[in-house]
Amino acid sequence: MITLEPIGVIHTPYLNNAPYQPVSNDVGEFYVDLDEAYTDGLKELLRFKYIYLLFYIDRLHEKPKMRFTPPWLENKELGLFATRTPNRPNPIGLSIVKLINVIDRKIIVSGLDVFDGTPLLDIKPYIKELDDKNDANYGWLDDIDNREHFMLHIKGIPHDY
Amino acid sequence: MITLEPIGVIHTPYLNNAPYQPVSNDVGEFYVDLDEAYTDGLKELLRFKYIYLLFYIDRLHEKPKMRFTPPWLENKELGLFATRTPNRPNPIGLSIVKLINVIDRKIIVSGLDVFDGTPLLDIKPYIKELDDKNDANYGWLDDIDNREHFMLHIKGIPHDY
Repeated sequence: MITLEPIGVIHTPYLNNAPYQPVSNDVGEFYVDLDEAYTDGLKELLRFKYIYLLFYIDRLHEKPKMRFTPPWLENKELGLFATRTPNRPNPIGLSIVKLINVIDRKIIVSGLDVFDGTPLLDIKPYIKELDDKNDANYGWLDDIDNREHFMLHIKGIPHDY
Repeated sequence: MITLEPIGVIHTPYLNNAPYQPVSNDVGEFYVDLDEAYTDGLKELLRFKYIYLLFYIDRLHEKPKMRFTPPWLENKELGLFATRTPNRPNPIGLSIVKLINVIDRKIIVSGLDVFDGTPLLDIKPYIKELDDKNDANYGWLDDIDNREHFMLHIKGIPHDY
């Protein structure tokens, strides 16, 4: 058994629902309140354009299903680990966000897909050449008739069609 | 307090030391043994070229320092969260690896920087367009005189100079 302790709190405008994946926007409503004990750990962080936020998905209490059909996809059964569903054996969330500013122990970021009050577990820098795999692929998303439309859902970008 | 349970074990050739970041190689010595209860969760995973492995860095028992000077860098003090040091408040490791094969519940991957026997916490697909940020930067690594050489260290790639 592994025990962890939150190091801060993520604040978002999402009180009761959240998009499936981070929205790219710069509205400043998304920020992290890092606990005071860790403020010194932020030195030089602002040099990075993107960071990873790792967080504990604390609102889920259902036992995860190993296989399921995701929203917006009919007739497609997927294994849990081939998806980004939040309902996982270890509910650790991972979001790549743009780093907008660091003011004392407040970290202002671009949009991400979590409820307000989500416990923060870690911050890591997203490093060019190490983390951006230009030859990455879409996996099973290639099977979707309208992948571009589906990616809007995945990213949580609002759209009218 | 948050509690997690390992879902498998990562196997590597590193018994007593490990490089700082994943090595890109395809030797097949790196694989995950997923616990049997989760085998069904692997359906369609092999469609992806890259995956994230999240793991528990279980060999560290030192209290992390919020600021330090990393190896190979003199006169540079960095905040912990601006680095990928394994010694973190919540020692969750994150590696992007190439997915080579999935055979039953054995997941064969490219090299990564962990000790043999490291507990696995999660597997997530690395999705093109969502995770590869082409405009990412190098952060404080830009200050290093010989960044290319330093990146070999960061990636754990052996070199003679």
